[in-house]
Amino acid sequence: MRKFKYIAFDADDTLWVNEPFFREKEAEFCELLKNFGAKENLIKELYQTEIANIKFYGYGIKGFALSMIETAIRVSNGKIAAADLQHITDMGKEMLNKPVVLLDGAARILKELNEGGYKLIVATKGDLLDQERKLQKSGLEPFFHHIEIMSDKKEANYLKLLAHLEVEPSDFLMVGNSLKSDILPVLNLGAYAVHIPFHTTWVHEHVEDVGDLSNFWEIDEISQIHDILSA
Amino acid sequence: MRKFKYIAFDADDTLWVNEPFFREKEAEFCELLKNFGAKENLIKELYQTEIANIKFYGYGIKGFALSMIETAIRVSNGKIAAADLQHITDMGKEMLNKPVVLLDGAARILKELNEGGYKLIVATKGDLLDQERKLQKSGLEPFFHHIEIMSDKKEANYLKLLAHLEVEPSDFLMVGNSLKSDILPVLNLGAYAVHIPFHTTWVHEHVEDVGDLSNFWEIDEISQIHDILSA
Repeated sequence: MRKFKYIAFDADDTLWVNEPFFREKEAEFCELLKNFGAKENLIKELYQTEIANIKFYGYGIKGFALSMIETAIRVSNGKIAAADLQHITDMGKEMLNKPVVLLDGAARILKELNEGGYKLIVATKGDLLDQERKLQKSGLEPFFHHIEIMSDKKEANYLKLLAHLEVEPSDFLMVGNSLKSDILPVLNLGAYAVHIPFHTTWVHEHVEDVGDLSNFWEIDEISQIHDILSA
Repeated sequence: MRKFKYIAFDADDTLWVNEPFFREKEAEFCELLKNFGAKENLIKELYQTEIANIKFYGYGIKGFALSMIETAIRVSNGKIAAADLQHITDMGKEMLNKPVVLLDGAARILKELNEGGYKLIVATKGDLLDQERKLQKSGLEPFFHHIEIMSDKKEANYLKLLAHLEVEPSDFLMVGNSLKSDILPVLNLGAYAVHIPFHTTWVHEHVEDVGDLSNFWEIDEISQIHDILSA
């Protein structure tokens, strides 16, 4: 039986729905701008703006709203109506106000692992207030020993987290939907990782297969973590 | 001689310059919108938008930029040019890119306290990535035992910090420029606080005097912390 001291969970699209809300607003953005370009092209322009802006804004809804505004002004050559730009800031607020929709089995597995003596962590990236608010709305907060909201999820960020928890990589298991953010940096540090693919992933998070590794598992749903821990 | 286990420092306008950059951009915003209102009125409109948006955006530059855009559209009745709105998003990026200007004596006192065996903390609010970036640029990071970037600075936020540090209020001293955010909530928890007024304070942070309290000091400059500790 495998025993980790800490099990860390990504939140967006691992514990609750997130990316589909972005795709929904992306579609609304394209509809708003339809006189200024085909959907495919508008999505590409928006994506390029978002990537160029990560160094300023980091991840999250506020940066997404600012990038939509910038893209709308650029692709319309400044012809976009002010009312449409107001609509974009309203879209951002609407996203920030969304109820939290838990993924199947998330609450149950956290409760079981918590009762089983595991110390559980949330390790998520994005806007601080937004992630805190979602965690509060989720009702999952009582299951967690520590909440880490990170500006990015690279090796250096995970190293800081491990140092902060005073835990060895061999005692740390990370669970998430993004190979790029939740799995690869953690494996590179010698820790363990479980990938649970989600049906929708932001292009920016795409990576090729991680290969066949002894400290890595891929499962279809969160409750299968039990199989890994009891093996 | 007073001995605290932890000394926590606010960062913006306590360790480095911050509020003047906001006032500078506020003036630029008023200049941009001068055809749509008097400066005094534009500032009032912007402030009202910011306050109404705190529940969505929290504190920081990204929310400030989004609030400027919203205000510009509203006060101009949608007549603001797209190029001017682009100018506003550029202003936000410019603020995010500002070099860090340390306040007099900040680096020296942190070094001395650190060498004196105090565990030093940063306790600041705002956008996660922006605060991390400023801390990195400041060169002050090595002096700190722990960095806490908070979505707000209310009693509940400080309670979490104290619990996380496993420290009693009587062993905790907070240093900052805002009576509302750095001093009052900390005193209410029974901890100690030092106020260093800064020449410019955001209206939202204004409060009346805190009165005469035994666990509270007001000093003119950061190096006077030594007088408090050695008393």
